[in-house]
Amino acid sequence: MPFKDDMTPSPQSLLQAPTPALVLDEARLTANIRRMEDHLAPFDVVFRPHVKTAKSPDVLRTVFGGTGPITVSTLLEAQMFAEAGFDDILYAVGIVPAKLDAVRTLADAGVRMQIILDEADVAHAVADTIAGNSGITVLIEVDCDGHRSGVAPEADDLLVIGRTLADAGLLCGVLTHAGESYSCQGADAIAAHAEIERAGLVRAAERLRAAGLPCPVVSMGSTPTALFVQALDGITEVRAGVYMFQDLVMAGIGVCQPEEIALSVLATVIGYQKAQGRLVIDAGWMAMSRDRGTAAQRVDQGYGLVCDAGGTIIGDLIVTGANQEHGLVGHRDGTPLDFSAYPIGTRLRILPNHACATAAQHPAYLLSNRDGMVRARWPRFSGWM
Amino acid sequence: MPFKDDMTPSPQSLLQAPTPALVLDEARLTANIRRMEDHLAPFDVVFRPHVKTAKSPDVLRTVFGGTGPITVSTLLEAQMFAEAGFDDILYAVGIVPAKLDAVRTLADAGVRMQIILDEADVAHAVADTIAGNSGITVLIEVDCDGHRSGVAPEADDLLVIGRTLADAGLLCGVLTHAGESYSCQGADAIAAHAEIERAGLVRAAERLRAAGLPCPVVSMGSTPTALFVQALDGITEVRAGVYMFQDLVMAGIGVCQPEEIALSVLATVIGYQKAQGRLVIDAGWMAMSRDRGTAAQRVDQGYGLVCDAGGTIIGDLIVTGANQEHGLVGHRDGTPLDFSAYPIGTRLRILPNHACATAAQHPAYLLSNRDGMVRARWPRFSGWM
Repeated sequence: MPFKDDMTPSPQSLLQAPTPALVLDEARLTANIRRMEDHLAPFDVVFRPHVKTAKSPDVLRTVFGGTGPITVSTLLEAQMFAEAGFDDILYAVGIVPAKLDAVRTLADAGVRMQIILDEADVAHAVADTIAGNSGITVLIEVDCDGHRSGVAPEADDLLVIGRTLADAGLLCGVLTHAGESYSCQGADAIAAHAEIERAGLVRAAERLRAAGLPCPVVSMGSTPTALFVQALDGITEVRAGVYMFQDLVMAGIGVCQPEEIALSVLATVIGYQKAQGRLVIDAGWMAMSRDRGTAAQRVDQGYGLVCDAGGTIIGDLIVTGANQEHGLVGHRDGTPLDFSAYPIGTRLRILPNHACATAAQHPAYLLSNRDGMVRARWPRFSGWM
Repeated sequence: MPFKDDMTPSPQSLLQAPTPALVLDEARLTANIRRMEDHLAPFDVVFRPHVKTAKSPDVLRTVFGGTGPITVSTLLEAQMFAEAGFDDILYAVGIVPAKLDAVRTLADAGVRMQIILDEADVAHAVADTIAGNSGITVLIEVDCDGHRSGVAPEADDLLVIGRTLADAGLLCGVLTHAGESYSCQGADAIAAHAEIERAGLVRAAERLRAAGLPCPVVSMGSTPTALFVQALDGITEVRAGVYMFQDLVMAGIGVCQPEEIALSVLATVIGYQKAQGRLVIDAGWMAMSRDRGTAAQRVDQGYGLVCDAGGTIIGDLIVTGANQEHGLVGHRDGTPLDFSAYPIGTRLRILPNHACATAAQHPAYLLSNRDGMVRARWPRFSGWM
């Protein structure tokens, strides 16, 4: 039964698009990209955007006006972007030997591949397996703030790993990610955390060089620290991903204003919870994701902040609860809604807590202009290899 | 660059499969399906499984040994299952007029379509739009426990809506979903809630019939209430979806044992958080979902309960934290792990909080037998139309 062509028309307006759907506001996307460019312009660094948020070559072509060096979080991202012509890829999750075959396949196809690790045993296994493969180099992951992974800048293991990789001709530098910057509040705190990130990473690079080891790449980054860092002495490369779209978690720590968030979920009012004074919409947690990243922030945005179909925030309306395909919309303080303003069929747009998580629930972006017209449908992918 | 064939081998053992990956234990799946069949066998009801958890015709064919009546949460599910030969479909999310075209396309292709609604205005719009289309009938959604949507069994609107639909020849019955059963604790509480669900729904059916309106279908269901209901007097149909796989939220309220959960995420140890005594694995929230449904239960399972590669639960190990592609594994009480038991490359399987949410993060199931061999790769879909 060939339904597909009948049932997926190409909408010209967001008012006609099937819901739920993922909307990307072109003007805000462009402004967010420009803001990062402008902030980093005074510094002599490579910018290597992270594609884990967008997972769409179309979005990254907007960043670069073509292709450029990228960071990936999965080998499927590496493969998909390589197929789209991106040939300088950093896989920024600690490698394990079982994944080296996939990395080598990409390198053999002409992609410049960088991988990362933080364990001496892994360094030995990698050295044994890929030494001499000119397409693959290795960065040592450094832990600058106790967030996740990496060797401490002062750890003995840093030099042990560095020596193992250098002897195999694989060492190309150090990398860190200041994940704790997501817990900072405001520009000053973020800038101070960026300096912690910078200083720890540069210290690791200096220790390698003092031991006679090469360290040409010194790569740091997160959306908060990339946008607020004041000095990049000793840093050669900056990474960030969420900055393209921004989200409510970023707004909650002062990285952006909610009005700058480029990503939203288009939804339709499908009913009412009359006793509780809430709307029922057709965007539940499957469309928004289960991410409740603002729950621990000063302003809890529920499952998202509600805008009209044109993208303008409506006072204090949030998605107060979510089932799989149902969202509940109400005032943040619980005051009942005036239903007459929201007839069945009303279109709303919901700003997400976490752009990476919400985007991952959808197969494509509807790229929209200021008039709410759909300029393009940009596919995105998900999953792993 | 044609990487795909090189990089996605068909693994024969879970020890060779790329990670993260979604594993479906065939023996547990079969046992969960059998349990529901056995529980409902004494009752004279149609069982109409919900496909929103599995989103895979292969899984539903296992339920039926062929095709059968199904419940869907999106019109994409309806379309995909119709293409796979399922021709009796209940779309159990409140309809809005904008979605009627898609429903009609399915009906015109020969699918028996049922839709639901709970608003008089929508009933009028539906009656105006599809009266006379013999392939579509309508159930009135009834609210039995204040969980989400529906008209109260005693509401005046029930008869208003019923009359509107009956006059258009569209009324075929009533439906409810006892979503609050997820907050019950233990078999007795769930059975009591099932009786509330049954009694409220049957009351709605009786009021329609007393008003001279037809009500052949009386459809209730949720995994907890379907598995623990003791009496189904007046009920013609039962629905459930999670029961096929089960999950930690269900285990937490006593619906199943953790050892009965058929779904898990296969992951690899990729490093250590040495200071905190935790493993780093390559299954983060992208692989597990952000669902933290056990957080409010008596035992918080973090982002999932950890098993060995064979699927046997390892004491009190849980995924204590998650980034996008990194999970942290530790003892529930924070005691540091003995890393020597978990060398880099060790395979683990993580039982999910919420099967619907975790499965939705993956493109396919690896169907595994008791020996950890992959018997099939069953694709699943996601998204909307």
